[in-house]
Amino acid sequence: MTVAIERDLLLLDAATQDLLFREARTANTFTDEPVTEDQVQAIYDLVKWAPTAMNSQPLRITFVRSAAARERLVAHMNEGNKAKTAAAPLTAIVEVDTDFHEHLPTTFPHAPNAKDGLSGNDTGRIAMARFNGAIQLGYLIVGIRAAGLAAGPMAGFDAEAINKEFFGDGKHQVLAVVNIGKPGPDAWFPRNPRLDFDQVVTTI
Amino acid sequence: MTVAIERDLLLLDAATQDLLFREARTANTFTDEPVTEDQVQAIYDLVKWAPTAMNSQPLRITFVRSAAARERLVAHMNEGNKAKTAAAPLTAIVEVDTDFHEHLPTTFPHAPNAKDGLSGNDTGRIAMARFNGAIQLGYLIVGIRAAGLAAGPMAGFDAEAINKEFFGDGKHQVLAVVNIGKPGPDAWFPRNPRLDFDQVVTTI
Repeated sequence: MTVAIERDLLLLDAATQDLLFREARTANTFTDEPVTEDQVQAIYDLVKWAPTAMNSQPLRITFVRSAAARERLVAHMNEGNKAKTAAAPLTAIVEVDTDFHEHLPTTFPHAPNAKDGLSGNDTGRIAMARFNGAIQLGYLIVGIRAAGLAAGPMAGFDAEAINKEFFGDGKHQVLAVVNIGKPGPDAWFPRNPRLDFDQVVTTI
Repeated sequence: MTVAIERDLLLLDAATQDLLFREARTANTFTDEPVTEDQVQAIYDLVKWAPTAMNSQPLRITFVRSAAARERLVAHMNEGNKAKTAAAPLTAIVEVDTDFHEHLPTTFPHAPNAKDGLSGNDTGRIAMARFNGAIQLGYLIVGIRAAGLAAGPMAGFDAEAINKEFFGDGKHQVLAVVNIGKPGPDAWFPRNPRLDFDQVVTTI
């Protein structure tokens, strides 16, 4: 099947397919153009509608805007991620609130016992937070692209140190650090290959 | 900030915002209209481009099409998920391949030691598979919606039983089961509230 035919099988128009998936790339350099509060609010207010298990919504975001906070973050990034994190117009610490269940009486009202069921099960609740938070990280990356911005998600950092430095309460756990902005010069590496449909999909 | 202003801050047009996020809903009933092989290939060939750490791409999908396979799956779904899984036009077992690192010499060629580094670290590799697979599940749900279909992702099933029943090699782990199709009558429950921007976001 050619790409042209495949594109027609989707309701999403070709330009939007490019914007969100085909042409969008993980950026490693950014221009100086700021990312505004209004833009990040628009991104959140779009992606918040995507689903999570039990409407749990464990994702939290700490936007690093001040020079002092950025310095504290860069100190805990892996060597290869320090320079780009220092230079990005905006950086998001993407984390989960492992006490997300406190909101369930409001966010999942038809199951009044859901909160109590999870409060005694720390291991299960933390796993649920991390799993659903990762799904929401996927939505967030799509949302950043939907605003015409590039995302630079990174997994290379000292997670324990970031948790201690920024989330003193022990209830928040970092999942990823994401640089956000307009792509700068030489923003990306050559694109790496993706697995083929037949390598990923089985039909039974 | 009103929704109208927020929509204008995104590059994504309002109809597409609705298609992917604002109006899209988790479906619990479906019409009989089939979901074709071409459609699922188009969905995969769109979402495969979204990023994963080290281009690891651990997500795998087992599409359940035969009546016999569906019966084997339904047996391991929680009571409340049995009927809708039995009736959906297509159901996907969304899983990860914890041996995803075998592909790294091809998919992440500039780090020739990446495969060996992960092969001796089962715990780290499985965590990496599950984390990146969950991010990809987020992309997949957006991709299903991009095809004009509704997704019904479910976490209520016996994971260990599904792994044993369908993935005898011990290397694949189910993350979610997702019904896919056109929404049927009374397809959704009333929408539950989302957390506000100020409940989720901190700026430092």
